[in-house]
Amino acid sequence: MGGDKAPEVVIDGAEIARERFPDISFLMFGDQPRIEPLVEKHPKLAAVTEFRHTTQVVSGEDKPSIALRSARESSMRLAINAVRDGEASSVVSAGNTGALMAIAKFVLKTLPGITRPAITTYYPTMRGESCMLDLGANVQCDAENLVQFAVMGEVFARTVLGIDKPTIGLLNVGVEALKGSDEVREAAAILKETSLPIEFMGFVEGDDIPAGTVDVIVTDGFTGNIALKTAEGMTKLYTSFLKDAFSSSLSAKIGYLFIRRALNNLRQRTDPRRYNGAMLLGLNGIVVKSHGGTDSVGFANAIGVGVDMAQHGFISKIKQDFERLKDGQNEQKKAAVS
Amino acid sequence: MGGDKAPEVVIDGAEIARERFPDISFLMFGDQPRIEPLVEKHPKLAAVTEFRHTTQVVSGEDKPSIALRSARESSMRLAINAVRDGEASSVVSAGNTGALMAIAKFVLKTLPGITRPAITTYYPTMRGESCMLDLGANVQCDAENLVQFAVMGEVFARTVLGIDKPTIGLLNVGVEALKGSDEVREAAAILKETSLPIEFMGFVEGDDIPAGTVDVIVTDGFTGNIALKTAEGMTKLYTSFLKDAFSSSLSAKIGYLFIRRALNNLRQRTDPRRYNGAMLLGLNGIVVKSHGGTDSVGFANAIGVGVDMAQHGFISKIKQDFERLKDGQNEQKKAAVS
Repeated sequence: MGGDKAPEVVIDGAEIARERFPDISFLMFGDQPRIEPLVEKHPKLAAVTEFRHTTQVVSGEDKPSIALRSARESSMRLAINAVRDGEASSVVSAGNTGALMAIAKFVLKTLPGITRPAITTYYPTMRGESCMLDLGANVQCDAENLVQFAVMGEVFARTVLGIDKPTIGLLNVGVEALKGSDEVREAAAILKETSLPIEFMGFVEGDDIPAGTVDVIVTDGFTGNIALKTAEGMTKLYTSFLKDAFSSSLSAKIGYLFIRRALNNLRQRTDPRRYNGAMLLGLNGIVVKSHGGTDSVGFANAIGVGVDMAQHGFISKIKQDFERLKDGQNEQKKAAVS
Repeated sequence: MGGDKAPEVVIDGAEIARERFPDISFLMFGDQPRIEPLVEKHPKLAAVTEFRHTTQVVSGEDKPSIALRSARESSMRLAINAVRDGEASSVVSAGNTGALMAIAKFVLKTLPGITRPAITTYYPTMRGESCMLDLGANVQCDAENLVQFAVMGEVFARTVLGIDKPTIGLLNVGVEALKGSDEVREAAAILKETSLPIEFMGFVEGDDIPAGTVDVIVTDGFTGNIALKTAEGMTKLYTSFLKDAFSSSLSAKIGYLFIRRALNNLRQRTDPRRYNGAMLLGLNGIVVKSHGGTDSVGFANAIGVGVDMAQHGFISKIKQDFERLKDGQNEQKKAAVS
């Protein structure tokens, strides 16, 4: 029921995802009399869909704390419960991000060793694709949070982006060791010493985000959110500037006809729908947040991310890494007292 | 003597600026036997240039604290002294930013009412041009710092960008009043109550930077630095993606011939050289930092910013506003006790 054009976009997105993933099946939570007829339009989708009727919904304006306490029969809450109960392998929602995070954290709990979940997404770069976290779940972060984000991001890049040994960078205002806030410098020191086989590359700067200098960029939720939205805004700026350029003269208009196909390829390469689906990492379950304003293609991609994470055993891999991290820290402590 | 291609770029930039500003004259600080022959190549520039010989230079690697204590005869220090002593109306350097800030703060002092200077620059947006501060002078900022940045930015947008009533936005992870860090929310509360005639528009997000939603974006130096560098990196990403697109097929190559002129206009519109020149605001003197890697056209633009600020009485206008801010605060205190 979440997102600007729900439930239509969600259902049409599910149909596209069904075509891509032949083994998929859906539990749909929401107003059954409203959604069932829409699903029935796609007989193959209807065949793999089970409905769970509820009329309660979390709205985009609801405060997370209110949504958590009072919306116990909401479609969002019930869908997350289904992951907790093992009925679903992941939950995908285009609804209220804050509420989704609050409810998911309460219902699913964080994985052992993880203090705070983080939001991540991946995006196109000069080198391919990279991911960044946190994107807004944690406005203020200490060094320990940042280290945990690094470990979560590394597992994410391995399992979802398929990168064998992902490189990690810590976002800062300069690459020199003395630059930045205390939290960032302390996190760098811990990551340099860690016993985990993490490819920590040290500090990176804002321009390393689009350059794709590293596979995983670690930062606090305030900076990450602003950097990601700045990048999104720059894409809009360039789209608008190019539109102006291509309509600025007769010659440019003729040129556009020759170049249209190449530009379409570029547009596909940077299509925000292709990168739709932000992941809530660190929870004991897979939770994917679709952009509220996306279309069915974008929503299908968010479902795809949920499928990828489930198929590649994201949760068990992240658990293993945090156990190793804990063991490493215990050994360091032992070494320190021996 | 500062910057990657000094002194050639600095001198050629001065020649370009001389053509633009007929009343300009220069004091050049540095290794006279090295720079004088380069200046002599431009007889009109030589006619308006006075040399101050020194062999000591601040290098790009020098720590600000070391540069401040030990480089008392450096070209950077002597150039800043000239502003303090009223010999020059502004100083322009392509050297070490941290050293420039530390020395300028020590020599020129901050203006009354200003705790910390900030770095700003302006950039192209969907609507025209906007500026943002701080861009890296202050990694951590409290609410009072942010309020001071808002006042400085407002005066800058009026005097340098020529905007009659500049609008101000505070960078945050959402526009709702409850979003963000304590510092940001407290600063918003102060700015809403201020007696200054400031057009405070509340919170803005990362995508509002390229959108140009407001004329002045206020943020801490950590976030501002990363947002600006992310935007710069996105420009590089798009330049590279477009280059790929235009050479991807014969048809695209033909189209490029028709569209070349329109793309050149676009390139000029977003040319980083056009926006070269970061300003150190809040000091009792005009200090402009050129990008170290710029060329002579870029350096000339940085000189142009120094000229603009001097001609439009930036320092006296900012002093007036801070006196009004202080008066307003005193009146509020009086009202509170009466």
